[in-house]
Amino acid sequence: MATQFDPPSGTRDLLAAEFEKRERAFDVIRSVFTRYGFEPLQTPAFERLDVLLGKYGDEGDKLIFKILRRGEHEASGDADLALRYDHTVPLARVAAAYGSQLPTPYKRYALGPVWRADRPGKGRYREFVQCDLDTLGSVSMLADAEALCAQHDALAELGLGEFTIELNSRRVLAGLLEAFGVPDSLGPGVLITLDKLDKLRPDAVVAELTGRGLATDAAGELVTAMTAPDAVDRIRTALKPSEQGAAGLDEVDSVLALAAPQVPAGRIAFTPRLVRGLSYYTGPIWEVIAPGGAGSLGSGGRYDHLIAQLGGPDIPATGSSLGVERILLLLPDGGADRRGRLDVAVTVMGEEYAAASFGFAAAARAAGLRASVYLGSSAKLGRQLRWASDAGARWCLIYGGNEQESGTVTVRDLVSGEQAAVPIGQVGGYLSRAAAESS
Amino acid sequence: MATQFDPPSGTRDLLAAEFEKRERAFDVIRSVFTRYGFEPLQTPAFERLDVLLGKYGDEGDKLIFKILRRGEHEASGDADLALRYDHTVPLARVAAAYGSQLPTPYKRYALGPVWRADRPGKGRYREFVQCDLDTLGSVSMLADAEALCAQHDALAELGLGEFTIELNSRRVLAGLLEAFGVPDSLGPGVLITLDKLDKLRPDAVVAELTGRGLATDAAGELVTAMTAPDAVDRIRTALKPSEQGAAGLDEVDSVLALAAPQVPAGRIAFTPRLVRGLSYYTGPIWEVIAPGGAGSLGSGGRYDHLIAQLGGPDIPATGSSLGVERILLLLPDGGADRRGRLDVAVTVMGEEYAAASFGFAAAARAAGLRASVYLGSSAKLGRQLRWASDAGARWCLIYGGNEQESGTVTVRDLVSGEQAAVPIGQVGGYLSRAAAESS
Repeated sequence: MATQFDPPSGTRDLLAAEFEKRERAFDVIRSVFTRYGFEPLQTPAFERLDVLLGKYGDEGDKLIFKILRRGEHEASGDADLALRYDHTVPLARVAAAYGSQLPTPYKRYALGPVWRADRPGKGRYREFVQCDLDTLGSVSMLADAEALCAQHDALAELGLGEFTIELNSRRVLAGLLEAFGVPDSLGPGVLITLDKLDKLRPDAVVAELTGRGLATDAAGELVTAMTAPDAVDRIRTALKPSEQGAAGLDEVDSVLALAAPQVPAGRIAFTPRLVRGLSYYTGPIWEVIAPGGAGSLGSGGRYDHLIAQLGGPDIPATGSSLGVERILLLLPDGGADRRGRLDVAVTVMGEEYAAASFGFAAAARAAGLRASVYLGSSAKLGRQLRWASDAGARWCLIYGGNEQESGTVTVRDLVSGEQAAVPIGQVGGYLSRAAAESS
Repeated sequence: MATQFDPPSGTRDLLAAEFEKRERAFDVIRSVFTRYGFEPLQTPAFERLDVLLGKYGDEGDKLIFKILRRGEHEASGDADLALRYDHTVPLARVAAAYGSQLPTPYKRYALGPVWRADRPGKGRYREFVQCDLDTLGSVSMLADAEALCAQHDALAELGLGEFTIELNSRRVLAGLLEAFGVPDSLGPGVLITLDKLDKLRPDAVVAELTGRGLATDAAGELVTAMTAPDAVDRIRTALKPSEQGAAGLDEVDSVLALAAPQVPAGRIAFTPRLVRGLSYYTGPIWEVIAPGGAGSLGSGGRYDHLIAQLGGPDIPATGSSLGVERILLLLPDGGADRRGRLDVAVTVMGEEYAAASFGFAAAARAAGLRASVYLGSSAKLGRQLRWASDAGARWCLIYGGNEQESGTVTVRDLVSGEQAAVPIGQVGGYLSRAAAESS
């Protein structure tokens, strides 16, 4: 039930465990992308409203969070800024703004939140992280293969077990329409229907195609070719005579050949059915799916004129995007990486021992460990040991009257229960060795 | 000159070099804070408007970026959400929302952007990073000392050379007013004027104090005591008879004693003049200043009832905040950490060599290096070597007809100019060894 203290609808407070799980995943992604030579770009959380409006269609425009003008203009109720809706429009603006100051080609990744006023639901937030990888300024299929392989490597290093990359090309789709005699006017609708072959029965797809006005023969042949056991071979044969189709096959085969040495054969497949909703793709397109995953975990493709349409220069572009929130749902909750907040918890057995205890914590930190003194008001050892244990500490340091007298600190190993009397000048070294042995 | 492609006023695009410099600094800060046992908290970029309004005073309210309601409500011109203005109000909301689910005490840090519609200027942005460290639920001076020491350690590890921590207590200030017979009604104004002793001459301060209605004698005595060569001793003596003053001195001395073993003596000083503008402090207060720094680099203090005033539970609290943008201005631009985008640049001497070159880049990445193939359209070696050099690569791999014939790759060290013919199956191992030797 929502209370007045909940974060706004569709957003989340990320407490330590969740935050750290996410950061670990982001570190993996950043590390893979960096290894491919992509560099980071971070744009502001908001853009001028006119930079965003009209770039996402009417439905998209409605989902943009708009920021009210300020000062004397606030009363107008007008907006002049808006929260970032994706990383692509800001990339186009950056390409226009910095031009030749950017490397050629410009290979950048962007990993950060975007905001959409969508209806919140399971795994669908109004503030969520997008992770994009794009190469501007290269027409080479090597760039497409890099975008695909980097995405594959990131998913593999994240520890995602089973996933498949479905690969196609927009030109294959154009060739398909040509080869099966689909009139130009029906093309877009036919593709939308064909994309449902992964969900609907073939006869339902044929019915939908004829409903769209495609001749029954053509609809039947098309669906048969695409659903036969040897569908891929049939489609390859059908595409060859079409100029577009042959060019599309070349693109697909180039990417497959380049990816082959590092993407296991079972993980990538030419998928003639794959359409991808966005109309701006111009070459190879792909989508990453996983068993049990809700929708795609990632996607990508070439979009050679989009940057110009978005206000940037007319440069070729290809890239991929990871469905970060969906991927995070599939990752284990931490496992071996799960640690408490502290390595070393230092008791404070009374005000007269506070300074010494504070110093022991400093010594532990100087040895590279996470350490804190007890900050509560109880002088009871039991209470303080409970705090040490709640904080997940491995060692608890105890320093009271007996220890003061003998010039030692009691170091209790909270896992084994063993304890040692360590001379006060040697606490840092002792903990450092103990940590090395236990890791 | 602003163009249509610039980011919105007061915001910045962070290209790779700047982004990486910032991230390195953030990593240092996070690492120090983690060692002190503080855990991360990330709240949404926006809060419900009513959570933020009225918490920052009239001036603050005007600087809040408000978000327009959406859908059918957009036309109303009303706002229902607003961008985060600081990390403290969201912390109060989180403390109220999660209560006993949070550890006791709750030690958290928040490092992330906040947004204020301030007039942009040098080092003053509308989107800027704040880094806060707070402990909720402890009345112990150990918590104040931790907040101060963690801030000190972060600045020291960032490599900031000279800086000083000025330490005082709100109770010292209350004691001062009592000891020098300042009427309660004049107290706040007198403190504001005393705080100017670091900028104004003593007689100017006396004049301002009498202008505020303080008796000439009292004003003279007060300023003389605070500016004498033995000012700190005089103030200590004057404070002792006052209950508030003595308690404040105890706070200051506790923090000084706890910090002493790790904060060099010259870096921290009891500073009775220090007031700190914000009225919500209740105990120790401090400010970090650096020679030549514009304003403070950090500050902190105890604010025992603020969380309740902000809508959270009434719990004691203390914390510190780093002036991240100002600190970043003082840090060197990268130095030894500055690297190119690539370690290994792989030429593509023609389409027939593309797959092999792509594979060499993959081998380099598998060896942990950053690698990319050439994505341009020139087959000229000179052009490709220029690309390799622009990308800052240490090694350039060349694979053309000669290499294909001999089954080798030419590995050129772009620093020494030396090159070697490496059998194609051994490229990864060769680069791995070369990288180990060169690091």
